[in-house]
Amino acid sequence: MAEITATLVKELREKTGAGMMDCKNALKDAEGDMDKAVEILRKKGIARASKKADRAVNEGRIEAYIHPGSKLGVLVEINCETDFVAKTDDFLTFTRDVAMQIAASAPLFVKREDVDQATIDSEMEIYRAQAKDQGKPDNIIDRIAAGKLDKFYSEICLMEQPFVKDPDKTIENLLTETIAKLGENISIRRFIRFKVGE
Amino acid sequence: MAEITATLVKELREKTGAGMMDCKNALKDAEGDMDKAVEILRKKGIARASKKADRAVNEGRIEAYIHPGSKLGVLVEINCETDFVAKTDDFLTFTRDVAMQIAASAPLFVKREDVDQATIDSEMEIYRAQAKDQGKPDNIIDRIAAGKLDKFYSEICLMEQPFVKDPDKTIENLLTETIAKLGENISIRRFIRFKVGE
Repeated sequence: MAEITATLVKELREKTGAGMMDCKNALKDAEGDMDKAVEILRKKGIARASKKADRAVNEGRIEAYIHPGSKLGVLVEINCETDFVAKTDDFLTFTRDVAMQIAASAPLFVKREDVDQATIDSEMEIYRAQAKDQGKPDNIIDRIAAGKLDKFYSEICLMEQPFVKDPDKTIENLLTETIAKLGENISIRRFIRFKVGE
Repeated sequence: MAEITATLVKELREKTGAGMMDCKNALKDAEGDMDKAVEILRKKGIARASKKADRAVNEGRIEAYIHPGSKLGVLVEINCETDFVAKTDDFLTFTRDVAMQIAASAPLFVKREDVDQATIDSEMEIYRAQAKDQGKPDNIIDRIAAGKLDKFYSEICLMEQPFVKDPDKTIENLLTETIAKLGENISIRRFIRFKVGE
């Protein structure tokens, strides 16, 4: 069995923000494989995070991002449960990452539940018409349109966008990791993005 | 006749941002009285500014203000005619003052024309009812209500609010002065104010 060195544990802690014993156990279970250990911790984190998702969030931070040149700016409110967590560096990093994400990727909504029905209907109509034009059989047109709608959500909903600093995760993954790391429910409440003359 | 010293001219320039010759002439016309000279320049500025008010504004700056503690934040777009003016210190100072004003005084609209009719109707109804309750005669109830509506506008409309750093002027006065100083049409286009949990 691979030796679990202090260096390995330290590396895993820095990667995941998980506690020392959790990291040691994950590395043992993964037989020293760093990627597997991260995966184990992430799964645990997700399990823990989903238990926290119903707790009330009334604290938090307002974060601004102004792009160099001052032609583009973002304001975002991110909530957590206590002012103690709101003041941690990890929370600050998360709020800054989210503000920069909004500046870079211009989402229109936080999550797909926020998209209004009129927008969904008009998108679906376009996708169905496109599929029909391409000669697709009627019985699969709805499936094609639904697939395109998912793609559309991943472009306009912040939570489903790939994280600009690490496109292997979505913002939702990043949120879940931050919940796991900080041990509190966290929620991206609202944002706005202004561009000069837009 | 009072002597117009270089010190007086300098003081007036700093107060108003007007040109050297304009300040000298204003002080002459005001016979060395600083307050009168300011008034003369302000009137000139307003005259010049109103000529500029129709010119197109497609440039500008997005400015953010985050109140210490990060529980309150503001994002504002302020437009001008050229990127050259957008990059001046005077424009920057103006955008910062406006962002801080919004944080401090929580306006709901930029100007009274932006207030929706439903809000106006419901306010007027309340004011009329109050005046009636106080036994005011019918023929002056509308005048009383209109006066109260003006007061309401000065609380909720950014342009009509007293400037927090100098309550003798409104934000509209400050805007007019800035237009006169920079020689371009300037317009406060939109703003948003987020407070944690609000």
